[in-house]
Amino acid sequence: MKSYRKELWFDVPNRMEFINITGEVCEVLRESGVTEGLCLVNAMHITASVFINDDEPGLHRDYKKWLEELAPFDASPERYHHNRTGEDNADAHHKRQIMGREVVVAITDGQLDFGPWEQIFYGEFDGRRRKRALVKIIGE
Amino acid sequence: MKSYRKELWFDVPNRMEFINITGEVCEVLRESGVTEGLCLVNAMHITASVFINDDEPGLHRDYKKWLEELAPFDASPERYHHNRTGEDNADAHHKRQIMGREVVVAITDGQLDFGPWEQIFYGEFDGRRRKRALVKIIGE
Amino acid sequence: MKSYRKELWFDVPNRMEFINITGEVCEVLRESGVTEGLCLVNAMHITASVFINDDEPGLHRDYKKWLEELAPFDASPERYHHNRTGEDNADAHHKRQIMGREVVVAITDGQLDFGPWEQIFYGEFDGRRRKRALVKIIGE
Repeated sequence: MKSYRKELWFDVPNRMEFINITGEVCEVLRESGVTEGLCLVNAMHITASVFINDDEPGLHRDYKKWLEELAPFDASPERYHHNRTGEDNADAHHKRQIMGREVVVAITDGQLDFGPWEQIFYGEFDGRRRKRALVKIIGE
Repeated sequence: MKSYRKELWFDVPNRMEFINITGEVCEVLRESGVTEGLCLVNAMHITASVFINDDEPGLHRDYKKWLEELAPFDASPERYHHNRTGEDNADAHHKRQIMGREVVVAITDGQLDFGPWEQIFYGEFDGRRRKRALVKIIGE
Repeated sequence: MKSYRKELWFDVPNRMEFINITGEVCEVLRESGVTEGLCLVNAMHITASVFINDDEPGLHRDYKKWLEELAPFDASPERYHHNRTGEDNADAHHKRQIMGREVVVAITDGQLDFGPWEQIFYGEFDGRRRKRALVKIIGE
């Protein structure tokens, strides 16, 4: 069994943003030499996500509006007890639970085994600092 | 390490429906000959889910109502920018994020290593056309 | 390829609670002897979650309030059809979909390959009885 690991780094200038990392994950897979197995991609931070969906700017705009409705940003300590710790990012911890921490993708014939429109995104909900996602590949 | 792959196809006549695929996934596991490992089952489409929960019609009715409240179907381009592309399925992309893309199930002694009520479902949110889920098994 | 399996048992006195199981999962990993691979941790019950987030009591309080808003407890058969079966836990099936069934964690150099604040939680939404989570490790 082979295993391979690589961190992808981000420094997103906005609080919330979605970044297509499909190409970078494909490159990590190529480096790994694995042709059959599983590829885990996860946010290493608890206010960020890795998810698979469509690379369509209108949809990303819709997601941002929807997540803001489900878990609004509010730095005050009234809405979110978490913000009594001095943090202002409680909303980001909630948004991340909706969008998920990780994806697991099948590797077949040396490729990410994707349907027609699947693309991998890093979802940032508390940006403006350097943060990471992990790619871990096992197989042979 | 062994690996095995199979696609499951669906043509759901309704926009939203949940289909129990536990039996089909068990059959794929049997075909694979893997007795210890991991089984990934994921939607290959970004308006569909694979999830694990109860096979109880009342619960499925509740899920449909709840998802419709959280992300209502609305073909107009006003609510969802995604529908300005000519699509009418932005709601389906949202519903899928709540229900998730994939499950990873342990394989032990040649069986899906399940608790008492766990059943695997394909969740369709934009049906009325042929779509797929992927089963990928690795182990030995 | 090595594989290892262990169940973690819980008997949570409240309906809803979050329990940090990071130490127990680390101990299972040590027992497994696996140094490179993947670690799956999943709830074996469909009214419970395993998720990764922050071990901060204010945030957990926020999650409970938020989940109660998104899917309120209501034992009556009016709001939830599922509760016409004699159950009163339909809300718990909904809360579990928001928080997720499982996490997959990379194993690198014999450790859970975590970012700075990642902690694993068992999330109970219908407690007051004995329930389980599964840890399944594969690798070498």
